[in-house]
Amino acid sequence: MRTPIPDYLTQVLDECGGDDGEVADYIAELAQADPDRLAIAVATLDGVVATAGDADVAFSIQSISKPFTYALAIADQGLDAVVEKIDVEPSGDAFNEISLERGSGRPRNPMINAGAIAAHALVAGPGSDERFERVRSFYSRLAGRELDVDEAVFESELGTADRNMAIAYMLRTVGILEGAPPDVVRGYTRQCAVSVTVRDLARMAAVLAGQGRAPDGEQLLEPQVARQVLSVMATCGMYDAAGDWLTTVGIPAKSGVAGGLIGVLPGQVGIAVFSPRLDRHGNSARGVRVFERLSRDMGLHLMEVSDVARSVVRRVERGGSRVAVHEVAGDLRFVEAERVLRSLEEEPEGEAPVVLDLERVHRVNDVARRMLLEGVRRLHLDGHDVRLVDPSAVLGGGDGQGPDAGGGYVPEVFEDAAAAVGE
Amino acid sequence: MRTPIPDYLTQVLDECGGDDGEVADYIAELAQADPDRLAIAVATLDGVVATAGDADVAFSIQSISKPFTYALAIADQGLDAVVEKIDVEPSGDAFNEISLERGSGRPRNPMINAGAIAAHALVAGPGSDERFERVRSFYSRLAGRELDVDEAVFESELGTADRNMAIAYMLRTVGILEGAPPDVVRGYTRQCAVSVTVRDLARMAAVLAGQGRAPDGEQLLEPQVARQVLSVMATCGMYDAAGDWLTTVGIPAKSGVAGGLIGVLPGQVGIAVFSPRLDRHGNSARGVRVFERLSRDMGLHLMEVSDVARSVVRRVERGGSRVAVHEVAGDLRFVEAERVLRSLEEEPEGEAPVVLDLERVHRVNDVARRMLLEGVRRLHLDGHDVRLVDPSAVLGGGDGQGPDAGGGYVPEVFEDAAAAVGE
Amino acid sequence: MRTPIPDYLTQVLDECGGDDGEVADYIAELAQADPDRLAIAVATLDGVVATAGDADVAFSIQSISKPFTYALAIADQGLDAVVEKIDVEPSGDAFNEISLERGSGRPRNPMINAGAIAAHALVAGPGSDERFERVRSFYSRLAGRELDVDEAVFESELGTADRNMAIAYMLRTVGILEGAPPDVVRGYTRQCAVSVTVRDLARMAAVLAGQGRAPDGEQLLEPQVARQVLSVMATCGMYDAAGDWLTTVGIPAKSGVAGGLIGVLPGQVGIAVFSPRLDRHGNSARGVRVFERLSRDMGLHLMEVSDVARSVVRRVERGGSRVAVHEVAGDLRFVEAERVLRSLEEEPEGEAPVVLDLERVHRVNDVARRMLLEGVRRLHLDGHDVRLVDPSAVLGGGDGQGPDAGGGYVPEVFEDAAAAVGE
Amino acid sequence: MRTPIPDYLTQVLDECGGDDGEVADYIAELAQADPDRLAIAVATLDGVVATAGDADVAFSIQSISKPFTYALAIADQGLDAVVEKIDVEPSGDAFNEISLERGSGRPRNPMINAGAIAAHALVAGPGSDERFERVRSFYSRLAGRELDVDEAVFESELGTADRNMAIAYMLRTVGILEGAPPDVVRGYTRQCAVSVTVRDLARMAAVLAGQGRAPDGEQLLEPQVARQVLSVMATCGMYDAAGDWLTTVGIPAKSGVAGGLIGVLPGQVGIAVFSPRLDRHGNSARGVRVFERLSRDMGLHLMEVSDVARSVVRRVERGGSRVAVHEVAGDLRFVEAERVLRSLEEEPEGEAPVVLDLERVHRVNDVARRMLLEGVRRLHLDGHDVRLVDPSAVLGGGDGQGPDAGGGYVPEVFEDAAAAVGE
Repeated sequence: MRTPIPDYLTQVLDECGGDDGEVADYIAELAQADPDRLAIAVATLDGVVATAGDADVAFSIQSISKPFTYALAIADQGLDAVVEKIDVEPSGDAFNEISLERGSGRPRNPMINAGAIAAHALVAGPGSDERFERVRSFYSRLAGRELDVDEAVFESELGTADRNMAIAYMLRTVGILEGAPPDVVRGYTRQCAVSVTVRDLARMAAVLAGQGRAPDGEQLLEPQVARQVLSVMATCGMYDAAGDWLTTVGIPAKSGVAGGLIGVLPGQVGIAVFSPRLDRHGNSARGVRVFERLSRDMGLHLMEVSDVARSVVRRVERGGSRVAVHEVAGDLRFVEAERVLRSLEEEPEGEAPVVLDLERVHRVNDVARRMLLEGVRRLHLDGHDVRLVDPSAVLGGGDGQGPDAGGGYVPEVFEDAAAAVGE
Repeated sequence: MRTPIPDYLTQVLDECGGDDGEVADYIAELAQADPDRLAIAVATLDGVVATAGDADVAFSIQSISKPFTYALAIADQGLDAVVEKIDVEPSGDAFNEISLERGSGRPRNPMINAGAIAAHALVAGPGSDERFERVRSFYSRLAGRELDVDEAVFESELGTADRNMAIAYMLRTVGILEGAPPDVVRGYTRQCAVSVTVRDLARMAAVLAGQGRAPDGEQLLEPQVARQVLSVMATCGMYDAAGDWLTTVGIPAKSGVAGGLIGVLPGQVGIAVFSPRLDRHGNSARGVRVFERLSRDMGLHLMEVSDVARSVVRRVERGGSRVAVHEVAGDLRFVEAERVLRSLEEEPEGEAPVVLDLERVHRVNDVARRMLLEGVRRLHLDGHDVRLVDPSAVLGGGDGQGPDAGGGYVPEVFEDAAAAVGE
Repeated sequence: MRTPIPDYLTQVLDECGGDDGEVADYIAELAQADPDRLAIAVATLDGVVATAGDADVAFSIQSISKPFTYALAIADQGLDAVVEKIDVEPSGDAFNEISLERGSGRPRNPMINAGAIAAHALVAGPGSDERFERVRSFYSRLAGRELDVDEAVFESELGTADRNMAIAYMLRTVGILEGAPPDVVRGYTRQCAVSVTVRDLARMAAVLAGQGRAPDGEQLLEPQVARQVLSVMATCGMYDAAGDWLTTVGIPAKSGVAGGLIGVLPGQVGIAVFSPRLDRHGNSARGVRVFERLSRDMGLHLMEVSDVARSVVRRVERGGSRVAVHEVAGDLRFVEAERVLRSLEEEPEGEAPVVLDLERVHRVNDVARRMLLEGVRRLHLDGHDVRLVDPSAVLGGGDGQGPDAGGGYVPEVFEDAAAAVGE
Repeated sequence: MRTPIPDYLTQVLDECGGDDGEVADYIAELAQADPDRLAIAVATLDGVVATAGDADVAFSIQSISKPFTYALAIADQGLDAVVEKIDVEPSGDAFNEISLERGSGRPRNPMINAGAIAAHALVAGPGSDERFERVRSFYSRLAGRELDVDEAVFESELGTADRNMAIAYMLRTVGILEGAPPDVVRGYTRQCAVSVTVRDLARMAAVLAGQGRAPDGEQLLEPQVARQVLSVMATCGMYDAAGDWLTTVGIPAKSGVAGGLIGVLPGQVGIAVFSPRLDRHGNSARGVRVFERLSRDMGLHLMEVSDVARSVVRRVERGGSRVAVHEVAGDLRFVEAERVLRSLEEEPEGEAPVVLDLERVHRVNDVARRMLLEGVRRLHLDGHDVRLVDPSAVLGGGDGQGPDAGGGYVPEVFEDAAAAVGE
């Protein structure tokens, strides 16, 4: 069988066409981009990338570099030090506004140029060349291949970097920037000129989706760093259309002036689209439509809940001695665990055995695990003999041995409910 | 057993104390509030509310009314008509800034007063009294009990409503408001004076979490309306600290000047906290700390993914004829469905039977269902005899009959994998 | 002989025609104005008014009322009390911007609506009706005839006063306004609807030019109040084109939306033009051109100095005993008095007589008078016998007696220089 | 006799003391200034300078250079070309705000850094060194001696020029600046470091007061350029306190961060004060007080009219044949000429002789001259025999011959009124 996903992606591209918008033209290299190019890539957390369209056409990463350099700055300096220099508030401004906070002088967020330049300068390195190399190398690890600068784009952009020079000098004035502005702007301009494909960008986005973990298992970013970056992308990634994007698409995203656009669905996928024509906000016109379509088709909106928790637990009495069995099914987060606890709450104090049957549970997050263990502990304190059925060891333990429920209590583990009730 | 949740909530309240911040004092009724009151309630989608602290102390809803009236306005006028009058962009302003968009005159969002007053005026009703009654009645249905106005608060606030009068007249000037400003401000002021407890607010928030569905199953709001409201709360709910809140707490929220604070975790729970002392942003000081603690303890951050998808599918060959069985486990969304399709992709064209075993799957969202059905259809087109094991009928169908996979193809359904492979 | 001034004014109107601009149309009464009306009046300080064009057509005073009510507010409350409520800084804003100062909440200046409403409310009066009557009566005394409200304009504007209501409520919020906003806005709207002709306005302006003194000699305003009003008109009178107006026209001015426009040349004349079509700043389009022409033709620019001080003093020795005579000619201000003192400085200490001949001096301002008297006193201290020729008594004194030069010294006065030197 | 002016200036300095305010400390050279230094100089148009205090202490000119470079830019490029790049509107901002106009990107005015940097760049010159030399040389001619750069101040300021670098790059971005920002900022910084005394500054200011004419008669600036510069100083010279300054002091002025402050009274004097401690607006604290005192004492306020025109013309009938004699006295501007014309208007048509006696008139500005000549021409057209008494030839003509009144008519000139009436 051939998986239908590439066919679906091709269909989405076909249906999100149109030639509205204009290719960025402030430098010749961008102006010469073929406006009809269109590509998409979707990367899963384990490194598989599905694509459609011009997936191997290279373009400059531009502002899509911003979240990744912000991540690297936090990794290098710590979150507190970075937040002290760069705020995280939506600015409602276009990408090239200076937008420094009154008083502190902090750039409003790391997704506008002022914040991105400040973030670049916060990347560790003895000099500006080493700093840029550290950035390039980090991007390469995220993308899973060596990335390089498009030197023609770099040279052209450096020649028109007046606004970024102005921003960098202003940042120095307010004490946000310590290095020499020309060096920082040079490094930042090189960062924006790194050449990528949608395939690269989707992989980079997927690392953010996977809490910073690369497909090969390497932890390229701490989970809390990835969380910070995604939060900022959610509110500040789409310039002055941030609120509109969050209500209609609902995916943390970032666009670049060369026509790239990435989206990250936490825990699920990284997505990248490329189409050079830009709308009036400076975002890829077809890229935005593709994301709207994907969000609608695939239920990717952050606030969308197509799987509202349904009944996850059932209490039955089994065996000759009518042992209470709490059968749990499905993945467990806080809300499902709360329901299991409510079911367990029905057991009055006493010495009757109680079976917690997790055979049909495959994933339990950390808080749910702690909640269930606390329930087990409390049943034990009430006098019950708690019997666990947990073939996947979702509560911990293993090798036939139960987990420690607290206070040294380890419930007995059984192969299945029948064994647990002694049937 | 007694469920540990109330104990946990009590512990959180104990540990998030402190007497920093100041009770709002612009009217006597708020200034007289007991600053030491502290309460929390957590409501699940099925209507169970766990509480701790002063859970039955009533206070005025104030700005926490804003998201609910916004929801009602959208329900009454349609999303497009409401967006035409009220934008959804974060304003970066304090609650009482006018913040009208240049050009259109639209309030920046419905969570600042200008937008909230405009939203109130968009609620259907032949007159202002009927409009308010419609608002009150809607809140009551959300809370599950009849709510009433605290008349003393109302009278006091009406006497100091100069700023809201200014805003209402300004909204009329720019064509956003059609009614008489004094009537609209009177209605809005009554709305803010509705008296609630944390128990009420948690239930109201839980309806938003549950895609607009009340615990009794009544659909009080369309899912897309709830989604819109949550999106706006995520970026605009905490005044000028929106970005800070989203990065550190990561829960769509709304605060009120009387000390209330609600949070909504889509698909999971509604939470409400009450503590009258306010921080410099005008948010409940202890309330903010409680939410930070809950988010951290319980993994509630929107961008937090404590359950990154792990292996969900395994291909085995069973039975004498070595039939390929794809055993799937856990809840399925897009990303997990994509893995199942990849597993199915391993089957070369041919007539060999293929078993898709969903016995350990309990929840499948809509897009995952469509993806699996498309996989089934493609296997069939390749010549395979597809056999489905789906005791919970997660793919649809039922009564022993399989779902329609498209093109009229209905795969045969088996009780379990053994039967499917003919063991 | 017929004075050429009306002919000149007619010629100016003829040559400043054009039908650019649009009549204000936010109320029917203004929209119905005949757009071709054009009139000018120039009033001297002694009450003579030269006119051309439609000088007897009445129109509503609108914002031209602002400087006069500001003057009355200062007269009633004192300058400090008024400045505490209304700043004097140019706002760079259009007429209907709120423009309150951060922190204090003060309107930026009394020429924008916020400041003008605040100024109206500062006029003394037990109630709003009395306050308006006081305003109307004051305008009438300035114009030299009873002025009345155009009730149709008033009623129409009251019906579209939403923005002013918004402003008034906002002013109350920040503590600038104490009365009930609807009352204040009603009074302010009546003030704007007072019906005038260019003849009236030119007379009103001439009182400001004449330091507050009416042609009949009555001091309607203290000189320092007139000075304050003119200073504010100079920087804030022409909305967001204030700097452009001051550089090109250089006359303190104020425009109104009905097409009126006044200018005040301190010490010289009051000018009023009427032409209903407005330019994009909201100023009368032809009115602005007329003022540009007048300023150029007549050398009225404040910074223009067509009469740079030339030699004003000559030292000659006359009579048999070669007495030193300092012959002074022309009007004397600080700069000319300084030259006289320099001339007197040439006299070495000694007892020789010194004649100060002021026969050809007709006007001496206060500082120049004090400087010359100090010179006289010093000559006396040096031992000289100072002889004054001052038939117009420009240094004071009179009836053949000289002024007190300080320290009780009174120089002898002679009829003419010949007598003084004993010729 | 010793002129009392230096004594007066000394007294003013004595009485405007106080040690409030802080010396600018952003560079060491300014921080080391002796905070107690205090000096004043008043220069008349003919080059005489009266001083008091530390009149020979040198300090850097800083922002006081701005009006002079603006003047030079207009002289070099023409007013229109300069206004196209730099607006003339008050900004209400502090000196170092960027304050570019929305849309055009023009700096708001030439008195804030952005406008001053743009003005510097508009000075003609093949390169930046020549441009600066042209600036320095121009200042030197204004001051009447060679001025030089304080190299220590220059070097220090160049090292802290980040904000000006930011501004210059921003100006390039919006197309206002064409040169290389580092070169322009270097030149501008040298301009600010020119070393001056109050004596120099007073002379420079006096050239502006004298319509661009130096004491030696050389026209260093066209009168209309001087007028433009003074107009801009009037509204923009005192940063965000422009309105306050104009109402209380009423003199076009400019301050510098080293403690200098100049004021220009058109047609009269240039004044300079030096005192290093600055108030919160960045203006010299004692300097401001000195100007307030001078303005009050000496009646220097632009809107102050201590010499409102009094009766300037008297009609008498003299001689046997009762010839009408119009005796005029005092300086004549538009307003006084208008009175003379009104007096002449009393003559009915006819052939009777009319005498215009200007013996007591010493100064007549251009418009007044044209008005009187037109009156003479009209009297002649009415049939009158006009006889002129004008010993100072204030109406033109000379050598015993009258001026041309238009249409070839030249009135007969008499030595005095007695001769004119044939007494």
